Amino acid sequence: MTGGTGPGSPEASPGGPGRESGGPAESVPDTSATAPDPPPDRPGAAPRRRGRPPRTESADTRDRILDAAREEFSERGYDKTSVRGIAKSAGVDSALVHHYFGTKEQVFEAAVEVAFAPVLKGRRAVLDAPLEEVGERMTRMILGLWENPVTRTPLLAIIRSAVNNETAAGVFRRLVAGQLLRRIAGRLDLPDAELRAELAAAQLVGIAMVRYVIKVEPLASADVEQIVERVAPVVQGHLTGR
Amino acid sequence: MTGGTGPGSPEASPGGPGRESGGPAESVPDTSATAPDPPPDRPGAAPRRRGRPPRTESADTRDRILDAAREEFSERGYDKTSVRGIAKSAGVDSALVHHYFGTKEQVFEAAVEVAFAPVLKGRRAVLDAPLEEVGERMTRMILGLWENPVTRTPLLAIIRSAVNNETAAGVFRRLVAGQLLRRIAGRLDLPDAELRAELAAAQLVGIAMVRYVIKVEPLASADVEQIVERVAPVVQGHLTGR
Repeated sequence: MTGGTGPGSPEASPGGPGRESGGPAESVPDTSATAPDPPPDRPGAAPRRRGRPPRTESADTRDRILDAAREEFSERGYDKTSVRGIAKSAGVDSALVHHYFGTKEQVFEAAVEVAFAPVLKGRRAVLDAPLEEVGERMTRMILGLWENPVTRTPLLAIIRSAVNNETAAGVFRRLVAGQLLRRIAGRLDLPDAELRAELAAAQLVGIAMVRYVIKVEPLASADVEQIVERVAPVVQGHLTGR
Repeated sequence: MTGGTGPGSPEASPGGPGRESGGPAESVPDTSATAPDPPPDRPGAAPRRRGRPPRTESADTRDRILDAAREEFSERGYDKTSVRGIAKSAGVDSALVHHYFGTKEQVFEAAVEVAFAPVLKGRRAVLDAPLEEVGERMTRMILGLWENPVTRTPLLAIIRSAVNNETAAGVFRRLVAGQLLRRIAGRLDLPDAELRAELAAAQLVGIAMVRYVIKVEPLASADVEQIVERVAPVVQGHLTGR
């Protein structure tokens, strides 16, 4: 993800895929400046990108590949998605996909991390909430992501892939458990905090499954506020109850 | 499993697709005697079997095909399973699979229905429980099925397939929502009974996902009783709370 070019190098920054990259990195050697949604605290993660787009055009190409990857993974799941298919859908050669990302697993991780960025962003609202509001914030964040078609598609990809493939399940565990649940648990200051956070998450994962993935009625068409009203207290109860 | 032939007739009932069509008119038309957990109350279901094994050997073959189908579907999910693969794994010709079951979708339904039989069996314990115990019974029934490797494998198949394939999702909706949740809802005598039953089910589906499918720790290794203790009141609360 990072792997930024040094400042002053002719290829500094203009290229980076950088959605959040504001300032050109000419002077400040901020290697993360051009990284899209850098994964916080990801210890020991291997750098995923093997090349770096030398020019903006290439950054566009990289983004196009990522978009294609998200589409492919969400429609087909991990197993049935191929680097060749992603390349075709992005209108590039397979070699270019390998060049930017490496293996299929690495493309998946990159795609998931981009897809997961809104969760990590929403995490702040959950972590900063007063403890007695964490349940509702968490419920609203997750439902909000599933209600929005833009964020729903990649979440579907993650679920579909994680259910069928151990590699993808590992990515899910690392991101959801590692980046989100453990942080929430950290706020609870209770001996079984992680189990509590996971049972709370299980309620929300289950709702995602029944409502958005398998689409069982009447839950599939129920009003979001009605769901929040019933579910937020349950999530809160798991986290801080008794 | 079904496919009993009429007593004494070498080739009784050779033709009819009818599991329910039964009885070779010859003697005692007890079609259900050898039926494997016939799907209760499945209105308007098309007969699944297109042939009828003329002898016990054939019933064994049919069972072997069903076993192979469950294995294949649970390991690969619906999309990646083929009739050819099932046939190969059962050691028979593809034509025989088609002969007994029809299309891939029909093999899937047959396999899922057999796999789902323990759920329908356990349903009685839930439906017959005092209303204030339904939450715990439902929780124990679902966790029990997932704890047992024999029943876990087909449940995995259902989940994996339903997540990735609309046909399989339809089977899930019909079985889980139609056969189980609607019955439980029927006991509640509340206007939003079905939504309540589905939110309760969502908690259990989510636990199955996090604990058995994606295997996030510490939930994956937590003691079952600890989970029941925390989850049963939540399930009960969804069903009858407030």
